[in-house]
Amino acid sequence: MSSKERRIVAFETHPSLSSFDFQQNAFKDRSVLITGGLGFIGANLAGRLAGLGAKATLVDSLIPEYGGNLWNVEPIRDQIRINIADVRDEHAMKYLIQGQDVLFNLAGQTSHLDSMVNPYPDLEINARAQLSILEASRKFNPKLKIVFASTRQVYGKPQYLPVDERHPLHPVDVNGVNKLAGEWYHIVYHDAYGLRTTVLRLTNTYGPRMRVKDARQTFLGIWIRRLIEGKPVLVFGDGKQVRDFNYVDDVVDALLLSASSDDSNGQIYNLGAEDPIALKDLAVLLVQLHGRGEHQLVPFPDDRKAIDIGDYYADYRRFRSQFGWRPMVDLQEGLKRTLEFYRQHAKHYWNSDES
Amino acid sequence: MSSKERRIVAFETHPSLSSFDFQQNAFKDRSVLITGGLGFIGANLAGRLAGLGAKATLVDSLIPEYGGNLWNVEPIRDQIRINIADVRDEHAMKYLIQGQDVLFNLAGQTSHLDSMVNPYPDLEINARAQLSILEASRKFNPKLKIVFASTRQVYGKPQYLPVDERHPLHPVDVNGVNKLAGEWYHIVYHDAYGLRTTVLRLTNTYGPRMRVKDARQTFLGIWIRRLIEGKPVLVFGDGKQVRDFNYVDDVVDALLLSASSDDSNGQIYNLGAEDPIALKDLAVLLVQLHGRGEHQLVPFPDDRKAIDIGDYYADYRRFRSQFGWRPMVDLQEGLKRTLEFYRQHAKHYWNSDES
Repeated sequence: MSSKERRIVAFETHPSLSSFDFQQNAFKDRSVLITGGLGFIGANLAGRLAGLGAKATLVDSLIPEYGGNLWNVEPIRDQIRINIADVRDEHAMKYLIQGQDVLFNLAGQTSHLDSMVNPYPDLEINARAQLSILEASRKFNPKLKIVFASTRQVYGKPQYLPVDERHPLHPVDVNGVNKLAGEWYHIVYHDAYGLRTTVLRLTNTYGPRMRVKDARQTFLGIWIRRLIEGKPVLVFGDGKQVRDFNYVDDVVDALLLSASSDDSNGQIYNLGAEDPIALKDLAVLLVQLHGRGEHQLVPFPDDRKAIDIGDYYADYRRFRSQFGWRPMVDLQEGLKRTLEFYRQHAKHYWNSDES
Repeated sequence: MSSKERRIVAFETHPSLSSFDFQQNAFKDRSVLITGGLGFIGANLAGRLAGLGAKATLVDSLIPEYGGNLWNVEPIRDQIRINIADVRDEHAMKYLIQGQDVLFNLAGQTSHLDSMVNPYPDLEINARAQLSILEASRKFNPKLKIVFASTRQVYGKPQYLPVDERHPLHPVDVNGVNKLAGEWYHIVYHDAYGLRTTVLRLTNTYGPRMRVKDARQTFLGIWIRRLIEGKPVLVFGDGKQVRDFNYVDDVVDALLLSASSDDSNGQIYNLGAEDPIALKDLAVLLVQLHGRGEHQLVPFPDDRKAIDIGDYYADYRRFRSQFGWRPMVDLQEGLKRTLEFYRQHAKHYWNSDES
């Protein structure tokens, strides 16, 4: 990589909340393990942690269908340690968690459709591997602080909006059930053994380094790819489904805040945004920000319709009031940065010969 | 077995609600599969189904630590088919569900403590095996009616009493998390694929044929064993924890009712009783009904305290209003029958040489 290219892909300086300043020291020289570290959120988190002087080890399986991508951490390659391993590898995980101060437990199977086509890998990764990570922590590193990335998917189709943490749990696909199990193992290991675990239920997260090759991580990924390739963005149904979106740097803030305090132990928090938007309007905004292209409304494919959740946006007041967190990057600004990133770095995220 | 003994252990005639009469034909000549069929609830259900003219196949792994016991079905051996297999055996289950009309999905790992000592068998049985049973049903018998036995354990420590189905889910042990996953797979396979699944969340179930050798299935089991052995019944803590209890024949009613109707598809229902009781009072009642013995309050063992849920009793109005079900056997009568059963048949349930 040339020094010019390196500069271009460097991790942005995030306009941190002033209340986050204590973090500057919270992670200095701390040993931090990130599962899914070469993936979208993991790599962005690693970039921030490198700047904060942490000693980060990134664990990733680099399974081609998942989010890991070595190029995601190119700018910080000499500031981190990379360990290729699968979270299902109990022995590797048992070794890797030892001596760590913090675990950001982000590795997961994220595709809802894949979880319905073949539910077992989803179960092994999102549920069983979590249990073995917690068992290892209980036995070999009981002081470890663990932040687990869960998902709004555990709520299913909202019964009211915005969705707070007391909303009934009603997952609509196998992925949602397994993530539910994964997060509750974390809570049980806090309640029964005193492990320092925190669960964040993420909503749609987007930004540089997300998987855009297909819709396995987020539909926004494939929208952006198609836009850049000059193809129409395909919006399912009438496009009136409302969703909320967090820019990845804001999610990184939330992960760091959760990890820096014991007040979050044994707790579950929603993340969310102030500016939910209908998917059709999001498509219009994206086309407008890109400066060209178009969107098309197309009928819902049957397999997706069966697991669609309709409108969703979160009430994240619980996390905001406890930690002062709020999203700093609005949707327009976040999408602008994201489009810019993929216009420059498309070749590292998809091969234009494959669909 | 002598004809005299056979008469003694015969399945009792249950004083059915008149509204249950339609069941007489609902199961005649129907092919019914019961996982955990040699266990406590499974064997009692099989006894009833045999009387209703169903063609029942009982699947059981006969794992010594679990509830299966061939002697449980001695009186109906020539009216049922027994297939020894583990629900984790995907291929066996895939074969066995084919051609069945109804599946009573009762097999489970029930010990909360075991699930904490070694969480993986609990995960494999209570979660993964459920997924593979549902996958098999989706692919090879999509019309199958499935009734899944879940547990009050998914609610954890009650936030209010009585606990209805809208109570937040907050399992306190690994068993509770895995049962939660198991029941939600059933709901997801209804919602996404139209499978005819129903979930019953059972509270403490007791009666003839329960495991009394130890506390792996219910603490009431070991209480009864100790009482009959002339040892004091040990009550943990102050004994003020309130619980509700269903006599097994009432639970069999509920299973049959759920299976006989498509109104229950995709639904979750609590079972429960009208007469919750503090454990200390239960111990007193049991001693009184037995005619001798005593109870002792002993401190909570640490491992049990960590996962104790305090007071619990269910609101079962949802199931009652939809199906007219209510418990027909009160606690005093049920305990009397249960004690009588184990006084007569102790030798089939524990070996007095082992503790």
